[in-house]
Amino acid sequence: MNVTFLQELFGSIAEQGRSLLPKSLFGVEGDADINGLARALTSGRGEASGVAVARALLDRYAELDAEGRTRFFKFLASDMQPNPARVSEAARAYLDAPSPLELSRLQKALESPRTEFFRRLHLAPGATPEIVAMRHDLLRVLPVDPELMGVDADLRRLFYVWFNRGFLVLRRIDWNTPAVILEKIIRYEAVHEIQGWDDLRRRLDPADRRCFAFFHPSLVDEPLVFVEVALMRDVPDAIEQVLEEPHAEPDSKAPTAAIFYSISNCQEGLKGITFGSFLLKQVVEELMREQPSLKNFVTLSPAPKFASWLRAAARSAEQGDNEERDVAAEARALLAAVGASDWPAAASGDTEAAEAIEASMLSLAAQYYLNAKGADGRPVDPVARFHLGNGARLDRINYLADTSDKGLRDAFGIMVNYRYDPKEIERNHEDYANGGVIAASRAVRAMLKLKPKVPLGHADGAVAQPALPAPEGAGNASDGRAPTMSEKADP
Amino acid sequence: MNVTFLQELFGSIAEQGRSLLPKSLFGVEGDADINGLARALTSGRGEASGVAVARALLDRYAELDAEGRTRFFKFLASDMQPNPARVSEAARAYLDAPSPLELSRLQKALESPRTEFFRRLHLAPGATPEIVAMRHDLLRVLPVDPELMGVDADLRRLFYVWFNRGFLVLRRIDWNTPAVILEKIIRYEAVHEIQGWDDLRRRLDPADRRCFAFFHPSLVDEPLVFVEVALMRDVPDAIEQVLEEPHAEPDSKAPTAAIFYSISNCQEGLKGITFGSFLLKQVVEELMREQPSLKNFVTLSPAPKFASWLRAAARSAEQGDNEERDVAAEARALLAAVGASDWPAAASGDTEAAEAIEASMLSLAAQYYLNAKGADGRPVDPVARFHLGNGARLDRINYLADTSDKGLRDAFGIMVNYRYDPKEIERNHEDYANGGVIAASRAVRAMLKLKPKVPLGHADGAVAQPALPAPEGAGNASDGRAPTMSEKADP
Amino acid sequence: MNVTFLQELFGSIAEQGRSLLPKSLFGVEGDADINGLARALTSGRGEASGVAVARALLDRYAELDAEGRTRFFKFLASDMQPNPARVSEAARAYLDAPSPLELSRLQKALESPRTEFFRRLHLAPGATPEIVAMRHDLLRVLPVDPELMGVDADLRRLFYVWFNRGFLVLRRIDWNTPAVILEKIIRYEAVHEIQGWDDLRRRLDPADRRCFAFFHPSLVDEPLVFVEVALMRDVPDAIEQVLEEPHAEPDSKAPTAAIFYSISNCQEGLKGITFGSFLLKQVVEELMREQPSLKNFVTLSPAPKFASWLRAAARSAEQGDNEERDVAAEARALLAAVGASDWPAAASGDTEAAEAIEASMLSLAAQYYLNAKGADGRPVDPVARFHLGNGARLDRINYLADTSDKGLRDAFGIMVNYRYDPKEIERNHEDYANGGVIAASRAVRAMLKLKPKVPLGHADGAVAQPALPAPEGAGNASDGRAPTMSEKADP
Amino acid sequence: MNVTFLQELFGSIAEQGRSLLPKSLFGVEGDADINGLARALTSGRGEASGVAVARALLDRYAELDAEGRTRFFKFLASDMQPNPARVSEAARAYLDAPSPLELSRLQKALESPRTEFFRRLHLAPGATPEIVAMRHDLLRVLPVDPELMGVDADLRRLFYVWFNRGFLVLRRIDWNTPAVILEKIIRYEAVHEIQGWDDLRRRLDPADRRCFAFFHPSLVDEPLVFVEVALMRDVPDAIEQVLEEPHAEPDSKAPTAAIFYSISNCQEGLKGITFGSFLLKQVVEELMREQPSLKNFVTLSPAPKFASWLRAAARSAEQGDNEERDVAAEARALLAAVGASDWPAAASGDTEAAEAIEASMLSLAAQYYLNAKGADGRPVDPVARFHLGNGARLDRINYLADTSDKGLRDAFGIMVNYRYDPKEIERNHEDYANGGVIAASRAVRAMLKLKPKVPLGHADGAVAQPALPAPEGAGNASDGRAPTMSEKADP
Repeated sequence: MNVTFLQELFGSIAEQGRSLLPKSLFGVEGDADINGLARALTSGRGEASGVAVARALLDRYAELDAEGRTRFFKFLASDMQPNPARVSEAARAYLDAPSPLELSRLQKALESPRTEFFRRLHLAPGATPEIVAMRHDLLRVLPVDPELMGVDADLRRLFYVWFNRGFLVLRRIDWNTPAVILEKIIRYEAVHEIQGWDDLRRRLDPADRRCFAFFHPSLVDEPLVFVEVALMRDVPDAIEQVLEEPHAEPDSKAPTAAIFYSISNCQEGLKGITFGSFLLKQVVEELMREQPSLKNFVTLSPAPKFASWLRAAARSAEQGDNEERDVAAEARALLAAVGASDWPAAASGDTEAAEAIEASMLSLAAQYYLNAKGADGRPVDPVARFHLGNGARLDRINYLADTSDKGLRDAFGIMVNYRYDPKEIERNHEDYANGGVIAASRAVRAMLKLKPKVPLGHADGAVAQPALPAPEGAGNASDGRAPTMSEKADP
Repeated sequence: MNVTFLQELFGSIAEQGRSLLPKSLFGVEGDADINGLARALTSGRGEASGVAVARALLDRYAELDAEGRTRFFKFLASDMQPNPARVSEAARAYLDAPSPLELSRLQKALESPRTEFFRRLHLAPGATPEIVAMRHDLLRVLPVDPELMGVDADLRRLFYVWFNRGFLVLRRIDWNTPAVILEKIIRYEAVHEIQGWDDLRRRLDPADRRCFAFFHPSLVDEPLVFVEVALMRDVPDAIEQVLEEPHAEPDSKAPTAAIFYSISNCQEGLKGITFGSFLLKQVVEELMREQPSLKNFVTLSPAPKFASWLRAAARSAEQGDNEERDVAAEARALLAAVGASDWPAAASGDTEAAEAIEASMLSLAAQYYLNAKGADGRPVDPVARFHLGNGARLDRINYLADTSDKGLRDAFGIMVNYRYDPKEIERNHEDYANGGVIAASRAVRAMLKLKPKVPLGHADGAVAQPALPAPEGAGNASDGRAPTMSEKADP
Repeated sequence: MNVTFLQELFGSIAEQGRSLLPKSLFGVEGDADINGLARALTSGRGEASGVAVARALLDRYAELDAEGRTRFFKFLASDMQPNPARVSEAARAYLDAPSPLELSRLQKALESPRTEFFRRLHLAPGATPEIVAMRHDLLRVLPVDPELMGVDADLRRLFYVWFNRGFLVLRRIDWNTPAVILEKIIRYEAVHEIQGWDDLRRRLDPADRRCFAFFHPSLVDEPLVFVEVALMRDVPDAIEQVLEEPHAEPDSKAPTAAIFYSISNCQEGLKGITFGSFLLKQVVEELMREQPSLKNFVTLSPAPKFASWLRAAARSAEQGDNEERDVAAEARALLAAVGASDWPAAASGDTEAAEAIEASMLSLAAQYYLNAKGADGRPVDPVARFHLGNGARLDRINYLADTSDKGLRDAFGIMVNYRYDPKEIERNHEDYANGGVIAASRAVRAMLKLKPKVPLGHADGAVAQPALPAPEGAGNASDGRAPTMSEKADP
Repeated sequence: MNVTFLQELFGSIAEQGRSLLPKSLFGVEGDADINGLARALTSGRGEASGVAVARALLDRYAELDAEGRTRFFKFLASDMQPNPARVSEAARAYLDAPSPLELSRLQKALESPRTEFFRRLHLAPGATPEIVAMRHDLLRVLPVDPELMGVDADLRRLFYVWFNRGFLVLRRIDWNTPAVILEKIIRYEAVHEIQGWDDLRRRLDPADRRCFAFFHPSLVDEPLVFVEVALMRDVPDAIEQVLEEPHAEPDSKAPTAAIFYSISNCQEGLKGITFGSFLLKQVVEELMREQPSLKNFVTLSPAPKFASWLRAAARSAEQGDNEERDVAAEARALLAAVGASDWPAAASGDTEAAEAIEASMLSLAAQYYLNAKGADGRPVDPVARFHLGNGARLDRINYLADTSDKGLRDAFGIMVNYRYDPKEIERNHEDYANGGVIAASRAVRAMLKLKPKVPLGHADGAVAQPALPAPEGAGNASDGRAPTMSEKADP
């Protein structure tokens, strides 16, 4: 509504979409066909007055309802395709006599007119956010209209170039950032919900807190991805150590650990374009420069699928090998134990039962992280896939680290630390990418072997009353919850 | 060398290309193979540490000499091509059973790995100017190494998207602009050379002068294209009316005409990416908003090929039709007349001879603009091609409008005004694009019929002494001169 | 805590108060005497290392508790005075032989060393807010320590020059303003409390709302005074028309009235330095330029003392002249009527009683504004003094315009519009300043004569139930309430 | 002419001096009396419409010619004085019964109405530079109109507060600085003239060069004072080591010395307001932070009065004591020697004569710096007064350090280094301020005793041809030359 903060920074003179061309050219057409404008844009008229046609089309699009937009997408899908006859002809010519020239002709024949359409649409100054929003619309209908996949592929390819890392600018977000951006931080935080402006201030303003975001020069006021960081003396093993308020006064001693405790993607329309990995790495560099005392760069991350995996493991035991059957048995015992006790309330009690639950939980969590693989041979945990893919190491598994309802429901309170160690990032990534090797600390590996001193169910102190919130919709507990970092950060 | 003005505007925290990855990864390789880095960048390693690999490659490239760079381009040309076997296979599969899926597979097989290479090269923050400079290097060797054409095509396609109009920002250039940008205005001015800082100030600082440029957020300190404008009461018919110093004090009356008297492209590496047309149209809008009194938006443009066309016309007359023979005869008479008189010195004299030369010159200039076509059916004048292609109208042909050595040598002093009339831009463009129709004013058309009262050679006042500078290298007089707008603005 | 938005704008390199001088110079003194530093600052040492001494003193001051600060003020009051012997001597010399030279000597003898002390204190970069805060501390103890008045006078004189209108910059406050400033708008709003960030957004972000503030380049992040404006089609006669949410969609028709509905001073330490008047006038200019459709510039202002005046008038009737006795009688009748009815609930009812109350209320309000004068011959209403002193005209008195608890308690719901008409501002001011003439519209003057059709107490529809909130502390109802504009804006 | 760079930084909305008040108020007065406007400004009218009256007065002033301005200054001098009767009365009252109240009354009576006049003149937004320029006008006529001294005193007092160190911002000047500021650096450089834009670039752009300036937020585009700095490995003993071009490539080794080789005040209107000392000290801090390798902060400074002192010493010898007679004799011998030889051309020759001249020159230069005092007991060298007063130490005297015509004429090529050592600045200043003690290195002190091995005139190698440029106007050689740092930096 107002001229914006970053618009001042990046903004140009007079880019409000005014057009040299008389409005009448478009005005007369009344409810002019948006398809007609799209055709005009890719034609010669687009060359002469592309800026104006593109602006008119975007304005027309903005007025369409959901149905109208879907119709327009279908038009793009069906009418803006490579000409099949030309493709066949060029393919044949190439096969007859392969040569660079024929290759280049075939490439040309295959180029989608849609691609040029979207490029010309971007002739209109200020169109970037509108075209990104267009893909957001598209993604909503894509599941039910798979024939639009080609349109999405073209847009995604375009965005991959537009939002290339080289164009992004890193900016610190703090209490001096314009409200129009801050309210988006509140809205987009996907991991640990921000409870209004006071909570936001607690996360941004203290001397030992940081927040960084990537921006794109043409997408003003809109962070693409942001990360919240706490600077601490010790690596925390529970989220409340980070979020508690008032947090301990900044030590007079310099912090040694930067804790990335939340990373959120912001733009639905840019789904599939990777930012999170670049952001984390650049923030590590930035912080190393700003605070030479920082030595540890670690996350405090959720385990969003642990609970559902544990239940599945408990159920699906019969078919497996020995080890799987052992895991299944242990999972059943653990589920029975936490269901039958006043866990986690009793966890602080130094009872044998509490110890048995903790040992069993950690051992199974290690199973989950180190051995549970999806059909693609990758970890089932999406957050793990993100960080391990980035070259991080699974450093620690923390028991009862998030005792919020969500934390207990999704992960029985488990959180983990991933460590970004510049010296091993590349090797970790290579090993993971090529062989699916999961970089994990010795401590995590040792947890696989962890056994309760007294077997579960035989310990004292168990109590009959189930204290755990029931899973929401058995089997797909994650569907109902807020999107987690992994889904947001690297879909 | 210093942090720059626009870097402050667009600049990000800590984008000096520092890298998370230990330098050792690259350092150990000593004189590491740049080709190896290129392969690493497109491989899995590029995924983990693309930013660092890209930065290392760019640094390596910067150290190469011209020969080394050419070798690298050849590597890109030969080794980073689509896999022929895969292309053939996919082409055959498509021809066997054409379907969207097979189409998409064929597209994928045809995608050049080079394209992905250049995209990943841009992972390095701040790499944009370096990659643009890379194409500048490439264009220098392209004429002698045509096998590099594919590399150029990929870069050009990439730049077309990167430098899409929607990303460009218009900025006024004035005396408050940082020196680092102003010195580039001096350097890049291609039409009427700027004679140092005082001359620059005369063109930027007065209240009735304007200069606008397009910038790209990632190419700081580097204008892409700029236009110099004079706000006047009347449309000038000679360049000295614009450049004279001190120019007449700004009228107390509001100006009615905006004269675009120079437009220059700045980035050799962006050759072939169109900016000039968008710039002119946006500046028209900007000025309309700023100064509602402005009604006329016209250029004062050179006729860079008129002299060479005239000489060619005089020579090549025999083969033509009647009209061509007439033109040839008139051209010969004119050349003889200007060669045999003290023209242009005597031009101000109100003699019959002077009048005859003027009438003949204007008539032949009208021929040049309205009838002289190249092999492609377009005007031979490159500046005309640019403005007519933009939808402008040829409004006026001015006699003895540029009497500088260059102006006389290239165009016998002829300059023209093109008019940008928002109401007719689109129609003019369409007519020109589809039918090659040249939009011209009635006055210009009438000049075709202009006849000297007394035929050339028969008039009084002719003098024997040739005053015209000899053409530099007969036949290609344009080779030695400074680049003109047209070549710079829209090659 | 963070580098701030305006610091970026105004900020200098490296102004964090670092000092060239070794810290040891001050460090060794341990609990060094702040008085000693003050003496050093005004001595030769202050010349050599004034920046460092000033910084040390300010740091020392910041560590003092309230008592320590008061002691320091007392030191300034007693020890940093003109030398009485020198003053007497110079006074005698002047009286003996008055001359420009002796005059100048006398002036010099009279100059307070404190003045130079405060100027040198400001050698420390970034000291402006600290010195302003110092006066804030001083003003708190001034009532009980009147001997500090001289210190206050010196500071006030200094601030009068520092915060001269010519240095202030007007900035629009909107939703793109940094949060650090916005939270101060929330905190400092003194007229119609802002209920958190959502309410703030409603006041700043809509297209028909404006907020402007004055800033000083050396007092970053701190608005000095701000005004909230609503752009409307009609001048509102009740505050809810301005604050209601959602407010009516911006008319497609251009607004004609700019309503200044809240103006608040922000800096206690700058009490007595006038900003409000300049702000209003510059905002009028700014809006005239931005929206030529605006023709009416009016406030919607509270009547903060009306209720207490009315009660006083009712009580103090006996001694007055005829007119005063009439007013007193009417006031008693009105108080009885509103006390004995279900007013204001019944006010919308079209009863004779309701009409009688309205007529009587308006008539007495006109009395309050036009005839009620303080000991200084000025209106008793502080808001009226502010606006009339600025040259505004009392344009309209609005019945039941603010039915909040506060509005009813302080002013029986009365609000007024002051009109800023550029054509009459100066004349109004002159008449008011010289003769105490109150500029008021004909309509307001006519209200003086307004009579209920049916006398109060004789009308139908009166009801026994008192609906009015009891005054808080009879007689000085205003003491307990939030500060109103007038007190904040022009004390 | 254009909106300026810093105006963007500091600039406010719509501060172009537009006025709320109808122009007619002033327009009608036609050639309205500027004195009348001044009276209006200090009257009640100034309260109502001070902004407009101040703007009108400044516009009127701008139209006045030199004579008109002087008349206006005389009006201010004579008509805007404290009322003598009131002063006398207050003085008497104070003497009768001295009390804080009477003191305050006397102060009030003595306050010049001019002071309030200038403060109100500054109500006009953007007026700061105009009022500074007013004093520039005043200073030009002050020498011939001493009765204007009171006006100047008031303005100077005001500027002392306005341009208080605490308000100034330090900015680096480099090649990215707007041209409008850079051209002022060229214009104002007072020590080593800048030969156009290329020379400027050589001083600003290299990685081992710095330039810093103080700006005031309300005096945009106008540096107040600037200093040029060279970062070097060794302290240079001749100016050409600093200015030579191309200067040696920046060492790969980090620089250890920051050489302040030129410092220039820019604003004539701010004469007498000290900036240079603060600038040097803050730049030292800034550089210490930026380049921790820097250990030596020294100037390379001219000795602008050495030649004239030497000639005076040679002439005035008779009356002095023994030491003075010795100095006189040596001075005569030296002058004869340099006059009779081909010095300085022969200086590089390793002759006895050359050595004798060097020894004698250095010894006399040490006399000049350490013993030559003015009537006030301070050094006769103005640059020395500036730096010693700042707490610097005279570190080295350099022979043939500036062999330009000016350098030879004013100082026989002598230049000196002053050292700013944070650890001794305060002590040096104190000793200098209290006892006139000149801080000098042991090496400089030792030079006092320096004797030629072979007495002057008796050495080989003397040549008859005088090579030294003749002094311009004997006795006041400095009058014709460009202003030196000292005069500019600390008048």
